[in-house]
Amino acid sequence: MKLSNQPYKGTRDFFPPEKRVHDYIFSKMRETAHLYGYEAYDGPLLEEVDLYKAKSGEELINEQIYSFYDRGERFVAIRPEMTPTLARMVSRIHKEQSKPLRWYSIPNLMRYEKPQKGRLREHWQFNCDIFGAPSSTGEIEIVQLAITLMKNFGATENDFEILLNDRGIVDAIFTKQMNLESEKSHRLYKVLDKSKKVESLSFKKMVTELTLDARQEELFWNYYGCDSFEKIITLLNAIGEIDAVKNITSFADHAKHLEIDKFIKYDPSIVRGLDYYTGIVFEIFDKHPENARAICGGGSYANLLKIFGEDPLPGVGFGLGDVTLTDFLVTHNLMPDFSSPETEVYITFQTDDGLKFALNFATKLRAEKINCVVNLEPIKVKKLFSVAEKKGARFVTMIGTDEMASNTIQIKNMSTKEQHNISTLNIAELVRILK
Amino acid sequence: MKLSNQPYKGTRDFFPPEKRVHDYIFSKMRETAHLYGYEAYDGPLLEEVDLYKAKSGEELINEQIYSFYDRGERFVAIRPEMTPTLARMVSRIHKEQSKPLRWYSIPNLMRYEKPQKGRLREHWQFNCDIFGAPSSTGEIEIVQLAITLMKNFGATENDFEILLNDRGIVDAIFTKQMNLESEKSHRLYKVLDKSKKVESLSFKKMVTELTLDARQEELFWNYYGCDSFEKIITLLNAIGEIDAVKNITSFADHAKHLEIDKFIKYDPSIVRGLDYYTGIVFEIFDKHPENARAICGGGSYANLLKIFGEDPLPGVGFGLGDVTLTDFLVTHNLMPDFSSPETEVYITFQTDDGLKFALNFATKLRAEKINCVVNLEPIKVKKLFSVAEKKGARFVTMIGTDEMASNTIQIKNMSTKEQHNISTLNIAELVRILK
Repeated sequence: MKLSNQPYKGTRDFFPPEKRVHDYIFSKMRETAHLYGYEAYDGPLLEEVDLYKAKSGEELINEQIYSFYDRGERFVAIRPEMTPTLARMVSRIHKEQSKPLRWYSIPNLMRYEKPQKGRLREHWQFNCDIFGAPSSTGEIEIVQLAITLMKNFGATENDFEILLNDRGIVDAIFTKQMNLESEKSHRLYKVLDKSKKVESLSFKKMVTELTLDARQEELFWNYYGCDSFEKIITLLNAIGEIDAVKNITSFADHAKHLEIDKFIKYDPSIVRGLDYYTGIVFEIFDKHPENARAICGGGSYANLLKIFGEDPLPGVGFGLGDVTLTDFLVTHNLMPDFSSPETEVYITFQTDDGLKFALNFATKLRAEKINCVVNLEPIKVKKLFSVAEKKGARFVTMIGTDEMASNTIQIKNMSTKEQHNISTLNIAELVRILK
Repeated sequence: MKLSNQPYKGTRDFFPPEKRVHDYIFSKMRETAHLYGYEAYDGPLLEEVDLYKAKSGEELINEQIYSFYDRGERFVAIRPEMTPTLARMVSRIHKEQSKPLRWYSIPNLMRYEKPQKGRLREHWQFNCDIFGAPSSTGEIEIVQLAITLMKNFGATENDFEILLNDRGIVDAIFTKQMNLESEKSHRLYKVLDKSKKVESLSFKKMVTELTLDARQEELFWNYYGCDSFEKIITLLNAIGEIDAVKNITSFADHAKHLEIDKFIKYDPSIVRGLDYYTGIVFEIFDKHPENARAICGGGSYANLLKIFGEDPLPGVGFGLGDVTLTDFLVTHNLMPDFSSPETEVYITFQTDDGLKFALNFATKLRAEKINCVVNLEPIKVKKLFSVAEKKGARFVTMIGTDEMASNTIQIKNMSTKEQHNISTLNIAELVRILK
């Protein structure tokens, strides 16, 4: 029987060039998290399904999760997101820890869905969360961190934007001002959540179908028309929602002070599902129309630990996926060229008896943390440079009978073509040349 | 309902201190792989079960694998090892690539088993493989790489040893010399594979039960008594197995030349199961009796691509697990202290109006790639140092009214207690002090 050699549907094989892309992305994520003092954590690949049910309800569980019974009859799932694991872990230790906790991770996650642009079954997600930060400081730090990451990839305000809202505002409008009962409010949330994905006429029709009264409809469209911090603040002031004004004003004020306001736009349609968010919510979008899916989504939440019977602990966080991020970087020409590997020294020899000399020389260089590759069989001079180039070698050397007899080799810099004659016994000098 | 907050059986929560341990281990693995010019790859978390069946047979599949049907009725499994994925990936591209291919990865893997010392359900494994290396050069390179990794952790020949054998020798003895038919040879392989796990009397009994004839038994025990390269070479010469002598002599000769022979011991009981190995096989063991499980296992194989209908491509590789490695490092006091995080600058302020100044200052430092943490609420002077120490801060600063008015702050080095008065506007000087 001949097996297929294709990867499982919706997953990827990362050959070295693609893995270098991945590692580049991950290293920028780690670097940015460390700049803000976020500490790495990690959790299990599998969790019991009850954990996801408690956080996300039945819908996600039934349709999108990779779940099965293990051999001990535990109903488990491959993690579709990191937040439930994070909540579980935080609930284990938060009482002994000084706050805030600043944590990040880059797990691989799986969701059962139709593979399409920007969305695969297996993906990696950069998760950053802060727990127990006083009032709105966690929100500003988390949003600033997300922007710093994008800037560290070379992106500017011409390339991406953060669309941001406050669930406190939506709740004030829907519940206090429009006076919607809980079920209708939920339905309006759902409609709002879809507004970016449908034509404006269908969106209007969906709102009409909710049979709001005239005053409710007017309020809703007034709210929906607020596409800037100024407008929403004016509206909130007009209707007397002073607490909501205070929160969003404080956020906008900090953003301006830290000069990140140019990246952020108030958007009344951002609500992030019916999910667990309670305060600021935001999504990062590519400004290029080719990439329509959000690169990142996050917000603040208060009750994540409730499912473990713990007191509320305010948190703010985001998840940023590798698939949409990669599309974004490629679209904006921000992805460096990773087609070739990098090798410091490519070591070759001319005749069979050169192997031992070459291996020995490589061993000496590696002891000095210089990475080198030994061409494991004799090579012809004319092939030397093309082979070394393919390996991304910075330096190349060829060992022949004379070199072995004299312990002196020629090392050539591949880009400057500069050549050094040097004793293989003089390691200090070699290191100086090669570093 | 109150959920449990414990991780799924046989898996681990990596809180920041444990994650720092993990990241340390992974960074040494990556560093060592790069020293030898090995390129990183990665593959999917799930593969179709047929892939594992083709490589390992039914036994592993039925007992140890996390398998299930996806919603599209594909029979899939969470990867229990990386080699089948590697083989699949290599089969996709090896024809266009110049040889040898040098690849590594550090995937998370899952096996369904009883959690015990050195063995968990989820673990990470460092995989290094070389494909298409001429004759025995791949074997020596792979063994040397594994030793370099152990040395890079600070381990010496007093801490660990590599027990090594050659499947070519075992085949020569069992098939050509003892003349065993295939089924009996398989059974003897299995018995040999268990010899380290049972008492010597039970082992003798297991051999007796195979009902070998007198000549076969004598040959077997002669072979089994060879516990050094010298002894096995003497035996092979005596019975005329010249090819086998050539291979093992060449390997031992290279090992001596590269000064890694002190780490390696010939061991006739190492066969690495009934698996796909065809040449050199080896395992790394802790010399401390507390850790009995192999830290690493590997060898050379010829026919890994056959299941995809491809021609043989010789490969050599090993897998090294994070659980046994961690036990090893802890036992030998080779694990650095990762209990505290590391922060460059811990920034605090005395009164509410200091927050903006502090955030601004942090933003400036981060633009210079200096990692810093802002204490997000006012702090009392007497708490300053204990808080900064907990965060592993190298420097600490406290912003008060005077500091804000003059744009001049005091920055204190936490270990030397040295103090610098410096303008927050003089970033170049700040960077000089902090780096």
